[in-house]
Amino acid sequence: MCIDTFVLYDIIQTYKEEAMLIKLNFESDIPIYLQLRQQIVLGISSGDLEPGESLPTVRQLANDAGVNPMTVNKAYQLLKQEGFIIIDRRHGAMVNTSIPLAEDYQQHLARHLAAYVSEAKARGVSLNTLIDMISILYRQLEEGTHD
Amino acid sequence: MCIDTFVLYDIIQTYKEEAMLIKLNFESDIPIYLQLRQQIVLGISSGDLEPGESLPTVRQLANDAGVNPMTVNKAYQLLKQEGFIIIDRRHGAMVNTSIPLAEDYQQHLARHLAAYVSEAKARGVSLNTLIDMISILYRQLEEGTHD
Repeated sequence: MCIDTFVLYDIIQTYKEEAMLIKLNFESDIPIYLQLRQQIVLGISSGDLEPGESLPTVRQLANDAGVNPMTVNKAYQLLKQEGFIIIDRRHGAMVNTSIPLAEDYQQHLARHLAAYVSEAKARGVSLNTLIDMISILYRQLEEGTHD
Repeated sequence: MCIDTFVLYDIIQTYKEEAMLIKLNFESDIPIYLQLRQQIVLGISSGDLEPGESLPTVRQLANDAGVNPMTVNKAYQLLKQEGFIIIDRRHGAMVNTSIPLAEDYQQHLARHLAAYVSEAKARGVSLNTLIDMISILYRQLEEGTHD
């Protein structure tokens, strides 16, 4: 497979733009609270949300995104449980300044990557192509969203 | 993050063993037909199922796995649609001898990998660690299940 870096660039750009706008896909099979969670994780990984930065209130984000406050709350609770954000009564939700590398995370990641690697290999995608894809995606995130 | 190759080895071994036994997790959030599909894809990627090899009949697999024949049929139809298997009336289902690299597959793969790469980066996993994980998983698959 010839890797099309332009396509990859497009994907990560679209992905980042969607995250910034909290653009939700209501027709997706992925539940809305998981889409919200994923976009906040993306904001953190791309540096768009900095450690210690405040997140919108539940009410405000629900309003902006056009969803039920319960949905936003569910996403925030999950992010808190995963260690990405901390929530306190006075300051609300903010990005954790030291996101823990949960002990079982490596196992979780490997298990999920194994499924994608196995499918890619079954389709004849080479290891080098996979490494190129991962590298491009990672570096695009490092470049941040301010370009 | 220090990569624990032993853990990775364990994961891919367990993963391969589960596939060979068609061991389903009925408590998982992943629908049974998708688990069946994934395990057949894994069988193909690890060389355990060879190009042109016959798959069990719907009835037989349903019996072995303890699921409804409709569920097996749904998995087979999906695998057929994705190009992994071919189904003909006389010979039943068999592994496609030339699995197509669907045009939109690279995009599909990149989009899913982007989510995992972004989460790993947010948790401080380095690009080198990701590349090591992918390489180990890929090479484990190359070694096949007969070791």
